[in-house]
Amino acid sequence: MKKINIGIAGLGTVGRGVYEIITQQQDLLSLRTNLKFEISAVASRTKKDFVDPKIQFYHNILDLANDPQIDIIVEVMGGIDTAFELIECALKNGKKIVTANKALLATRGQEIQEMIDRYQGFIAFEASVAGANPVIKAFKEGFVANEISEVYGILNGTCNFILSKMKNEKQDYFVALKEAQKLGFAEADPTFDVEGNDTAHKIILLSSIASSSLPNYSQTHIEGINKITIEDINLADELGYKIKLLGVYKNLKNNIFLAVYPALIKIDEKISQVDGSYNAVLSKGNNFEYNLMIGRGAGGRPTGSAVVADIVDIACNRNNNFLFNAESINLNKPNIQKIDQRFGKYFIIFNFDKNIIKQNNVVEQIFNDRLKFLQCVFKDNQIGDNTITGAVLTDNHLEKEITETLQLIDKNLVSNIKFIRVEQTNF
Amino acid sequence: MKKINIGIAGLGTVGRGVYEIITQQQDLLSLRTNLKFEISAVASRTKKDFVDPKIQFYHNILDLANDPQIDIIVEVMGGIDTAFELIECALKNGKKIVTANKALLATRGQEIQEMIDRYQGFIAFEASVAGANPVIKAFKEGFVANEISEVYGILNGTCNFILSKMKNEKQDYFVALKEAQKLGFAEADPTFDVEGNDTAHKIILLSSIASSSLPNYSQTHIEGINKITIEDINLADELGYKIKLLGVYKNLKNNIFLAVYPALIKIDEKISQVDGSYNAVLSKGNNFEYNLMIGRGAGGRPTGSAVVADIVDIACNRNNNFLFNAESINLNKPNIQKIDQRFGKYFIIFNFDKNIIKQNNVVEQIFNDRLKFLQCVFKDNQIGDNTITGAVLTDNHLEKEITETLQLIDKNLVSNIKFIRVEQTNF
Repeated sequence: MKKINIGIAGLGTVGRGVYEIITQQQDLLSLRTNLKFEISAVASRTKKDFVDPKIQFYHNILDLANDPQIDIIVEVMGGIDTAFELIECALKNGKKIVTANKALLATRGQEIQEMIDRYQGFIAFEASVAGANPVIKAFKEGFVANEISEVYGILNGTCNFILSKMKNEKQDYFVALKEAQKLGFAEADPTFDVEGNDTAHKIILLSSIASSSLPNYSQTHIEGINKITIEDINLADELGYKIKLLGVYKNLKNNIFLAVYPALIKIDEKISQVDGSYNAVLSKGNNFEYNLMIGRGAGGRPTGSAVVADIVDIACNRNNNFLFNAESINLNKPNIQKIDQRFGKYFIIFNFDKNIIKQNNVVEQIFNDRLKFLQCVFKDNQIGDNTITGAVLTDNHLEKEITETLQLIDKNLVSNIKFIRVEQTNF
Repeated sequence: MKKINIGIAGLGTVGRGVYEIITQQQDLLSLRTNLKFEISAVASRTKKDFVDPKIQFYHNILDLANDPQIDIIVEVMGGIDTAFELIECALKNGKKIVTANKALLATRGQEIQEMIDRYQGFIAFEASVAGANPVIKAFKEGFVANEISEVYGILNGTCNFILSKMKNEKQDYFVALKEAQKLGFAEADPTFDVEGNDTAHKIILLSSIASSSLPNYSQTHIEGINKITIEDINLADELGYKIKLLGVYKNLKNNIFLAVYPALIKIDEKISQVDGSYNAVLSKGNNFEYNLMIGRGAGGRPTGSAVVADIVDIACNRNNNFLFNAESINLNKPNIQKIDQRFGKYFIIFNFDKNIIKQNNVVEQIFNDRLKFLQCVFKDNQIGDNTITGAVLTDNHLEKEITETLQLIDKNLVSNIKFIRVEQTNF
């Protein structure tokens, strides 16, 4: 039986998952492939107890990339620069790469594509998006015969956990965040997750595959959940909506829409029912219509199992050679639509003093007929003063019209004006 | 650019979908593969207007299999014997096969496996299960590092459409069936769908992949939806359940459970929310935990797009050579558990005369303490007589205990006793 030698760079949660799956499930993998998978070396800052001491250990990550025994390098160390160096060195040495590093691919995709071209190499990255959900495979292979026109992704388990906690247990943002940290669903420094960057990296990769283009991080509009309050969630709930952090991709005619933001979604749309730390990717294709994949988005074993799937594909020569779904010279260069050109519904939230504005006429007094509204809801603020929180759901408008209208509002009438976008997936 | 010559056998709904996708989306497919896909011949009983008359047409399906120009044969004609002949002839001629024919694979899987071994050939069958949902790929490749312990599939769009209609519009079974036929969701002779055979073929194939074993049609317990009444649905609804036709696979320790039946599922479980003609596959893996894939299960374009995905995989040499997820000599031979050994909850429905049985004591009088019950519900039958329809939800029992208990019930007390199984997916 042919032996495949694997080197793992990084022994954190995912590295451990990969290690355990390969060592504990050798028979299963051999049954399904007629190959023998072996971990021949690992590299990490510190040695880890769970690793068999007979396995070669490297302190220096580049020693792993230079180990002539290794066929496939698994990069699960995270970070950007060192990971880039490792991958370059490994590709130069003719090794195949499996990575879970969405940040690296999304922010330095062009350089990585050039590197692949230079060394005629290959990088698989299933584990980088939606964990155990095989969405990269679905997008590149299963949906190959489809123009993908829309993607809505719940791609960050931390944020989805926090938003679900807030909604279901009426917890404040910071209470839910603390709970997420306690349970291991959020990092000690959660910035990267709650500000939307992680979701951005993932939707950018899906967008690249869907549009056969290089990742475009710098032009992607990114907002997180860190400004969402329990009041926002309750107001949305009153109108039958949940708030989810979404990565959104839309193939418009002359450009693409690509952004990350918290959005209201009707409770009867399937993606809004995905709660807790689960990930979901809803896509729309010209032939397959709607497809929704729900699965664990993080964790050592789920993500590790996606890494191992990539390893097996490479070992079976099933790898897809086109990183971003086309040969590099054929990659498209779509324009990303400016966020102020987004056309859609908006949920505008604001405070006002009930002594200044009469509640039977709020919308007209504040918005002066500048926007079309579908619904509104008002709540006493229960602080004991005269403040009322109001929220209105607009009809479809350009975002520019919304922001301009909000600027025109008399600030003596209302305070704390903000808006949350509304998405309608029709599924 | 290398050219891939395709021959399509069968020009029905799916054949047309494949034809249209390949002819209309050549550029997209070439961008993503650097290959040119061309339909070089078609075979069908009658010529079809949508086919370019310049394309070679064969009346005799075997002429297609013998055409030396063709690289890949697409078998979308359905049926068993002629399809088998076609595939054998094509494999003998060294052609790769893509089929959507679940009936053929599920009922004659062993012969097909032997044929593949004999000719060292390859058959791809993504389109045969759950249409546009890439579940075969997910099971064979994406989930390769997982023992799949449970699968729950809504695999027949016709049945799901009918059950959804009955539930949502309070329609009787035959009214909903007629509506399905009118809309093209059900065949003129719907037997094959409504009696559960189609679902059986599909869950059998998923089971084969999950357990690396040959399809076992003869031992699979199959029940359809043709005995489900609007009263059953309403009674289930009262207790917070929907009724869905499920294909169920479970990897028990010493054997497997494999069956098709209508089942009650709690309305807050995600799979119960999949309505209309959509398909869903919920699976549980030892590493990925839960995964749910929802997508169009039928139709020319959705199914055609799965066929084309297989064509592309073959053209890119990405095909998985193991039909049932292991080399034929390594295929497992699991025992299928007898249905009377199923351990689970049951929903027992029956009629009784309110003058004979006192309603405050129904369960004790009828079941004589032989089963443990969780809930019960009663409904006046509104026929003007004294008949009451009762339904009880049992705790977990062996199915044998249920059937034995029902046989012991005094038939002077109750009539029309039947049960529907209850599934709990925990997702």
